[in-house]
Amino acid sequence: MSNPSGQPTLFDAKANDETMAAEKPKEKSKPSADGGGATAEAMAKKQREISVSEFFTKNRHLLGFDSPRKALLTAVKEAVDNSLDACEEARILPDIKVTIARIGQSEKQFTMTVEDNGPGIVKAQVPNVFGRLLYGSKFHRLRQSRGQQGIGISAAGMYGQLTTGHPVRVRSKPGKKSVPLEFSIRIDTAKNRPDATDRVIEWDKDHGTEVSIDMEGEYRRGQKSVEEFLKLMAVANPHVQLTFTDPDGNVTRYERGTSELPKEVEEIKPHPHGVELGILLKMLQESENRTLSAFLQQDFSRVGPTVAKEICDKAGVKPETNPRRLDAAAVQKLKAAIDATKIMAPPLSCIAPIGEPLIIAGLKKEVEADFYVATSRKPVVYRGHPFAIEVGIAYGRPGDTLQVTEGGKIVEAAKKKSNEEVLMGAADEPIRLIRFANRVPLVFQQSACAITKAVIGTNWKNYGLQQPRGALPIGPMVVFVHIASVWVPFTSESKEAIAGYDEILEELRLALMDAGRKLGIHVRKGKKLASEFKKRNYITMYIPHVVEALRDILDLDEKAVASASTNLTTVLEKSRKL
Amino acid sequence: MSNPSGQPTLFDAKANDETMAAEKPKEKSKPSADGGGATAEAMAKKQREISVSEFFTKNRHLLGFDSPRKALLTAVKEAVDNSLDACEEARILPDIKVTIARIGQSEKQFTMTVEDNGPGIVKAQVPNVFGRLLYGSKFHRLRQSRGQQGIGISAAGMYGQLTTGHPVRVRSKPGKKSVPLEFSIRIDTAKNRPDATDRVIEWDKDHGTEVSIDMEGEYRRGQKSVEEFLKLMAVANPHVQLTFTDPDGNVTRYERGTSELPKEVEEIKPHPHGVELGILLKMLQESENRTLSAFLQQDFSRVGPTVAKEICDKAGVKPETNPRRLDAAAVQKLKAAIDATKIMAPPLSCIAPIGEPLIIAGLKKEVEADFYVATSRKPVVYRGHPFAIEVGIAYGRPGDTLQVTEGGKIVEAAKKKSNEEVLMGAADEPIRLIRFANRVPLVFQQSACAITKAVIGTNWKNYGLQQPRGALPIGPMVVFVHIASVWVPFTSESKEAIAGYDEILEELRLALMDAGRKLGIHVRKGKKLASEFKKRNYITMYIPHVVEALRDILDLDEKAVASASTNLTTVLEKSRKL
Repeated sequence: MSNPSGQPTLFDAKANDETMAAEKPKEKSKPSADGGGATAEAMAKKQREISVSEFFTKNRHLLGFDSPRKALLTAVKEAVDNSLDACEEARILPDIKVTIARIGQSEKQFTMTVEDNGPGIVKAQVPNVFGRLLYGSKFHRLRQSRGQQGIGISAAGMYGQLTTGHPVRVRSKPGKKSVPLEFSIRIDTAKNRPDATDRVIEWDKDHGTEVSIDMEGEYRRGQKSVEEFLKLMAVANPHVQLTFTDPDGNVTRYERGTSELPKEVEEIKPHPHGVELGILLKMLQESENRTLSAFLQQDFSRVGPTVAKEICDKAGVKPETNPRRLDAAAVQKLKAAIDATKIMAPPLSCIAPIGEPLIIAGLKKEVEADFYVATSRKPVVYRGHPFAIEVGIAYGRPGDTLQVTEGGKIVEAAKKKSNEEVLMGAADEPIRLIRFANRVPLVFQQSACAITKAVIGTNWKNYGLQQPRGALPIGPMVVFVHIASVWVPFTSESKEAIAGYDEILEELRLALMDAGRKLGIHVRKGKKLASEFKKRNYITMYIPHVVEALRDILDLDEKAVASASTNLTTVLEKSRKL
Repeated sequence: MSNPSGQPTLFDAKANDETMAAEKPKEKSKPSADGGGATAEAMAKKQREISVSEFFTKNRHLLGFDSPRKALLTAVKEAVDNSLDACEEARILPDIKVTIARIGQSEKQFTMTVEDNGPGIVKAQVPNVFGRLLYGSKFHRLRQSRGQQGIGISAAGMYGQLTTGHPVRVRSKPGKKSVPLEFSIRIDTAKNRPDATDRVIEWDKDHGTEVSIDMEGEYRRGQKSVEEFLKLMAVANPHVQLTFTDPDGNVTRYERGTSELPKEVEEIKPHPHGVELGILLKMLQESENRTLSAFLQQDFSRVGPTVAKEICDKAGVKPETNPRRLDAAAVQKLKAAIDATKIMAPPLSCIAPIGEPLIIAGLKKEVEADFYVATSRKPVVYRGHPFAIEVGIAYGRPGDTLQVTEGGKIVEAAKKKSNEEVLMGAADEPIRLIRFANRVPLVFQQSACAITKAVIGTNWKNYGLQQPRGALPIGPMVVFVHIASVWVPFTSESKEAIAGYDEILEELRLALMDAGRKLGIHVRKGKKLASEFKKRNYITMYIPHVVEALRDILDLDEKAVASASTNLTTVLEKSRKL
């Protein structure tokens, strides 16, 4: 139905033809007050679908590609995440090689390459994995992994294509006897589909994957650099062998600290308590089970016959009912019954926290400090997803503070020069916070992160630290915080910060308080020692003068002087109950 | 090809059958180091597509639905944004009614309804607009609007469906003579498609749209409430009539302050300088123009025949070349030529900043203060998108500080009691920052926002304020910051904070400095006045005693005492050069 007059007859579907005919417009009416605006029909012509790739091309900052200096790091992160996930799932000790090379002599264009010794990827999946957003194996599975969205590596490829016009190059060899292939993959952003070619290559490797992306970027060292990211990666992943080659050809190796892979994580079914009404409705519709009782037991974790019966009884629905036949009211009751029933917490085999000893070992490897402490909380649940919070603290720069030797003697440690390798700041600077989610360092958006909010919200004055209002505490301290979960709620697709779910904030609070208390004991002891040391210094300083005066007055010999000095020191120290 | 042995033959596509046959595996090889892990083939079976709706259901915090207390506000925001955009595009003065009602006696479930007097929506589009993510009219157009993603209102509906199981209800009447319809819309999350029914209703209204969503929520007053959001909305949109009915039936009206609509914004074409290589490639492929010269002139803004020729010359490509026939190398050269050519800034008709007078008027309407100032910067460009930064400042709580009346006399204002309506904090509290993007208040994620970073990064000590390191300045002050742009880069789909693009941070810095300088003059004058006032108080306090002493010594009469007192005051004040 064309409408050149621009008048608002507007409904373009058949259902209204009749009505429209019945009350044919007798005068031109316009919805616009001043007559100059667009009509609903004009607006309707502009409505259209937005492809996922178009959306993220325009919003590339959501994926971590808002600036050239972030782009390289984000791409490395996504590729390394995938490599580590694949290696761990295949139970292979990861050996990862990261290379960043200039394209020609450019300071603006780089090739990022990440090569692993993982299980490879089958031919049919390679184009989808690297050339299609929202595609992957991790989204629908409830188990801890670094990737979870099916966006990251394709987004990196899309950014590369956007800024250089070059396709993504992927090599894959899924096993000793299989033929290595090289793929060239473009992303059709209007359709969000890959456009790939492949060829057989020589590749002297048993199995593995390599991805290369050309992209605009800016290579930097220091804070928020690829190097720092890899260093932090090594802290939280001591089982990984990492080799990094920078654009100048310098090679840095992060050696494996343990040859033990993290505990293998198992996929779990959803826990009934985390399921929202809409999801429950959908699960009921899609279930392959014929009875409600079987549905509850098969499609959820932690529901046995007894619990299933209890839920059905409370809901007033027969256990034999076909799950697809429940009406809306019955589903509401079922949801209420589930919420009102005690059900064992979900199995924790789906997550693999790092654990207190390895956190401390990791910190000791990379942060020199006087005192280390860690807290690994028991996993709990938000929206049905198990998660665990872990906190590690490294406190005190050797050299800045006092040290107590084993014999209890106080010695002043030699001042250490601070170099750029030192993660920890000075005594009058804000602490350094290092954040991790499923063993991946979170480098950007610190202020947007629930972890930061929890650290700021903790009263560190209780543990002997200074803390300006609404800010991080001050002191020579590194705070390590890790969340391990089957589903980490990130504040954006770039996975840089954790969203502030109440349950997560609460666990963070408790973990920080626990580590804080242990720290407090040490800090107070340190302060007491420091004050003792100062007093003792006074004694050391003044006693010779006092004794000298006594010698003059009493005319003592050397032996008597020495004895007086010792006695006086002993008396003074005793009076301070040391 | 089934592979029950689990061994990695792995390639499941035909292209490799030959190769596979040629080197038939003679021994079982496993990619796994310890033999216990998954193979590439096993992993491939788990790969699948993730629908946009599934993604956002699981990640609903990305859309602003992470907690019940945010949910209601986010839904209201999305609905009001759409209403205002539609009204303004149709050039209708907006009259918006927002209602939040309890479902039954529940304190956990609410119905949110937003009704407008806009142009309505044609029947065929209603289900898509409300029941499909990434669908809309605003994403592909370069003009300022509140909505831009085609996600918001469908996301609110999806959240409602997830938490209550209820469909979204929409009424629409696109014109006086058209038949009002009511729709019931469900979202099929696995497919991201609407499932809608509709019926004819009675609706006594010329034209408009109403959306009702049932959802889990928590109704709160005070900070970060629906009320506060609407109040801030009124500050930045004085042309809007808003009526809010809360769950207890209390009605708040925000009256229209002006009957003038904001300037009508025009859609522009992309500016050549903001176009990335990948986009240029795509535009060349999709252009309907037959020559490169026509392509440059027709598909971009600000390119005339001369500029087009200059670009072609620099690139070494003939202007008559078919845009689809350029090879990769030629496109690279074309991009370099575009970047090297001076091109007039994009037309600014696509954005509508608020302007200094209206910013001050808006602030005066809602914030009581001693001093108001505003800065509206000239629009500039990031990634080809024009944007303008505006800053307003309201400083000093009447009652807390001194006031100068028109005659220049200093009087102490009566202490005002602070009530919950006061946006401004006390003199020793951090300033209150209110952020806006395309006239929409940004209520959440303040710390993640580029605006906040820019305010913290400004040295407010230069303007007479205290400021702790890395924090907002301290003082009785409200800072209003607005970004108007054809494309606001938000840090997540919930549109709560602005991403830190360098060009935007720089403009924010300049705007804040400009407003800050104007503030500084006032603050310093205020400080001088305060110090004067204190001194004058001393005079007022001591002169009677001095005069009394003089009377006793010199034996003066009442008249002489009064005269001496006046003269003394005058002399003392003159000596301080007041």
